[in-house]
Amino acid sequence: MTTIQDVARHAHVGAATVSRVLNGSGYVKDATREKVLKAIKELNYTPNEMARNLYHRKSGIVAIIVPEISHPFFAEFINAAEIALFSHGYQSMICNTWTEQNYEARYLEILKQQRVDGIITGSHTLDIKHYQSTDRPIVALDRDLGPGIPCVAVDHVEGGRIAAEELVRAGCKNVLQCTGTDTVSTPSNARHETFDKVMREHGITCHNYVQKQNMFDYSYYDKISDEITDKYPDVDGFFATDGLALSLIRSSMKKGRRYPKDFKVVAYDGTYISRLIYPSVTTIVQPINELAVQCVDLIMDLIQERVPEEENKKLKVTLRRGQSTEKF
Amino acid sequence: MTTIQDVARHAHVGAATVSRVLNGSGYVKDATREKVLKAIKELNYTPNEMARNLYHRKSGIVAIIVPEISHPFFAEFINAAEIALFSHGYQSMICNTWTEQNYEARYLEILKQQRVDGIITGSHTLDIKHYQSTDRPIVALDRDLGPGIPCVAVDHVEGGRIAAEELVRAGCKNVLQCTGTDTVSTPSNARHETFDKVMREHGITCHNYVQKQNMFDYSYYDKISDEITDKYPDVDGFFATDGLALSLIRSSMKKGRRYPKDFKVVAYDGTYISRLIYPSVTTIVQPINELAVQCVDLIMDLIQERVPEEENKKLKVTLRRGQSTEKF
Repeated sequence: MTTIQDVARHAHVGAATVSRVLNGSGYVKDATREKVLKAIKELNYTPNEMARNLYHRKSGIVAIIVPEISHPFFAEFINAAEIALFSHGYQSMICNTWTEQNYEARYLEILKQQRVDGIITGSHTLDIKHYQSTDRPIVALDRDLGPGIPCVAVDHVEGGRIAAEELVRAGCKNVLQCTGTDTVSTPSNARHETFDKVMREHGITCHNYVQKQNMFDYSYYDKISDEITDKYPDVDGFFATDGLALSLIRSSMKKGRRYPKDFKVVAYDGTYISRLIYPSVTTIVQPINELAVQCVDLIMDLIQERVPEEENKKLKVTLRRGQSTEKF
Repeated sequence: MTTIQDVARHAHVGAATVSRVLNGSGYVKDATREKVLKAIKELNYTPNEMARNLYHRKSGIVAIIVPEISHPFFAEFINAAEIALFSHGYQSMICNTWTEQNYEARYLEILKQQRVDGIITGSHTLDIKHYQSTDRPIVALDRDLGPGIPCVAVDHVEGGRIAAEELVRAGCKNVLQCTGTDTVSTPSNARHETFDKVMREHGITCHNYVQKQNMFDYSYYDKISDEITDKYPDVDGFFATDGLALSLIRSSMKKGRRYPKDFKVVAYDGTYISRLIYPSVTTIVQPINELAVQCVDLIMDLIQERVPEEENKKLKVTLRRGQSTEKF
């Protein structure tokens, strides 16, 4: 049987590099990654875990529950999680809840009946107790589901602070941030409090626009962006998640405001859509790939009845500075 | 047991509307859709097919094989397919091939071992014979996999014609289109021939840039966009898929060209990313939702051993005119 060492030798790299490629952990040069994938292909290498699974007759399936597959954040998350699961010999079953509580609950019921070895959930609609009554290993993405259910998230407080300081640096005097509903307990809410605090410390006006629903719907984004730019025509700095940030830019430009001369923007998440426009958008980047790898590592620990080193993981965000925060 | 009629009565709509919502076929107003989903939730309605499946002990799982989940086209396709499958009492297992032949082949092997009731494939890397040797029902998205395997696609020839005529109408004299590799037999290649033909008929210069790989990789898009805008600095009209079209716009703007004054753009696919920039991009829109619903309908026919009304489906594209083709 081909081993990871065989692949490493064939690709002229170290075994750790092969492992990083298999785990999709992302610190590998494109050229090296290509060499490794080529070697995997040529040797028809199958990770050991896959063989082990088949032997132990587990289903080899981990369910991933998300509100909407086509939202860029979850699309990138699923993509990375699926690659990481595959390297452990697992496949993913994707469950789409459309932010409907009913579907989340029903999926949990179905997953109880199916042979699913574990659940990674990024969905936010359902009451915690539903999850706690599930007898499968569960890992939560960016959500507190209570004791015993590990949570993987970024340091959102730091994210809010960096975003605020970037708009201060750019010379903003009158900013607006869009927040999600506060009906769900997610660490991501913490960024808005910090953002607001930093602004007050600098004597800068900060409007907080609360979205009625945590919807991932581009026509909804356009609707509230038009409302916001009508109601606050003089705002000179926006802080919002990628999709909404782009929508605020479009809405402002339609009304004749010059981007990024008349107003500054910091987007949050750093999905690929934040890279699509010119001039470029300054973005607080979540390491989506790493979030997925950590979720998969934790669910593997739980499935294989290992005690995870630490239950909750808090990853770092980074600032990707673009033209949208060039100084006034 | 709650029936579809109960839901219809509760939501004050017709049963056909409930069915459209369940099938995600998309001709339902947002407000109506919300009413129906609310009724489904309140009555805890479960589609009949789901009960039937549980009774017949099918796995209730359809695998969807795509090159990359996070590509907007496939993300939207999976999203819609998953909703349509759910309404039939099915779940989806998503398989991500990263355009690596090796993974596509391995997935097919795994799917043979798993209890998967059917396969919808949008992946393009593998030799046809691998699919033909699979003993599960298969439906292909946008790919000819040979006799007996239904194919769902749009009318790409018409798409190429509409795109070309739009750039002619806008006054272009020197255009460039980006084509995928021609190593895979997919109906989508047909649009480029037609585009080129229309241009020649109008005496317009048409450069054809052939992508080396059908990669869905934004840094690759940026790389080839920079090459293209270096090599063809005077092109006044671009035709490319959504992501590449946006990349060509960014690259041209970076070099000081004014969008959309100095050059026109027609994007192809109509995923949500084609709506993200201002001024807006003219786009040939594939009905992605409908493509997914048709794939699911066909796979349901095959799974339930019904003869499909027609094996191959060819859906219409539409032109969404934006500011990127305003006349010179």
